[in-house]
Amino acid sequence: MNFSSKLLEDAVNEFARLPGVGKRSALRLVLHLLRQEEAQAVSLGESLIKMRKELSYCKSCFNISDTDICEICSDSSRDQNLICVVEDIRDVMAIENTQQFKGVYHVLGGIISPMNGIGPDDLNIDSLISKVNQGEINEVILALNTTLEGDTTNFFLFKKLKDANVEITTIARGIAVGDELEYVDDVTLGRCMINRTPYETVLAR
Amino acid sequence: MNFSSKLLEDAVNEFARLPGVGKRSALRLVLHLLRQEEAQAVSLGESLIKMRKELSYCKSCFNISDTDICEICSDSSRDQNLICVVEDIRDVMAIENTQQFKGVYHVLGGIISPMNGIGPDDLNIDSLISKVNQGEINEVILALNTTLEGDTTNFFLFKKLKDANVEITTIARGIAVGDELEYVDDVTLGRCMINRTPYETVLAR
Repeated sequence: MNFSSKLLEDAVNEFARLPGVGKRSALRLVLHLLRQEEAQAVSLGESLIKMRKELSYCKSCFNISDTDICEICSDSSRDQNLICVVEDIRDVMAIENTQQFKGVYHVLGGIISPMNGIGPDDLNIDSLISKVNQGEINEVILALNTTLEGDTTNFFLFKKLKDANVEITTIARGIAVGDELEYVDDVTLGRCMINRTPYETVLAR
Repeated sequence: MNFSSKLLEDAVNEFARLPGVGKRSALRLVLHLLRQEEAQAVSLGESLIKMRKELSYCKSCFNISDTDICEICSDSSRDQNLICVVEDIRDVMAIENTQQFKGVYHVLGGIISPMNGIGPDDLNIDSLISKVNQGEINEVILALNTTLEGDTTNFFLFKKLKDANVEITTIARGIAVGDELEYVDDVTLGRCMINRTPYETVLAR
């Protein structure tokens, strides 16, 4: 692409570094911003810079938070001895939306992924282990994505935690509510049979 | 979506105002920026602000340009009396890529679109007409998209220019190179028959 303006080219190139944004989409976004009020582009730019420079993390669970200890960790009505381990803030938001969890979180900040050069040392794992080793925690729920990387990370955490006096669980795998049996993959359906639950527990909900 | 941080929420909301970017994609982009070096988010933000505040337009053709008169308009090897009318800079870039046009451009900055509240007064039309009325221009090529809005704008410009002493043409409509006849729509194929060209002109290329 040959641009008639260096300013335009810079803005397009910066946009195009984002994942899933090609040069053409980047140009479309930049031209859109040019057609809007100047304030919109300025406030997008400023909020990105401010966010990146000032964003901080909860010192307890490592979720993104504007305060030292996040709202969830400082909520005394929540069970501080029940920890749900997740990959990032999106998973916290997804689980919070269900309103079915009243413990606290521990955000790993990623999952073990040798392909992307992410090892256990790049994640908030040591802090989880020392939290558990203090002996107050009753249960650690592993709630990572059900991918190869998620399973690897689950297994790594399990090995690190299994000697501590703590119950280790993972979120249920099974068929989703509303799914039809015949379209479910074999592995999932197999697990559904093995991990069947007493009907009373379903009725109780 | 409930965000645990105002800074994060602001950045996501600003991203989500862009066309084709939903809240989820916006959050994905923001989390991506958080995982990169701080410099990337800062330079994206700064280049957007600088672009929006400092970008200027060629005083002659209204294309985006860092100089008062753009490179194309100030190129003495180009025919200054042959004007190609386009919607925006993307069309200039597309036509320049073909290397088949040696005149200059006139960028309307949009097309007439009552649905989007864009009338003739919002576009760079007066300047085109006064350019043509100075009497030096030999030909005006209308190169707008072949949509209803493009056709409307073409017709509007034709009515405004038809009394001036200037040839008015539009870019050829026909089947694209590599297309198969049976899949071409009726209107286009009909035009292809009416606007057939002498075979010698094809051979001459």
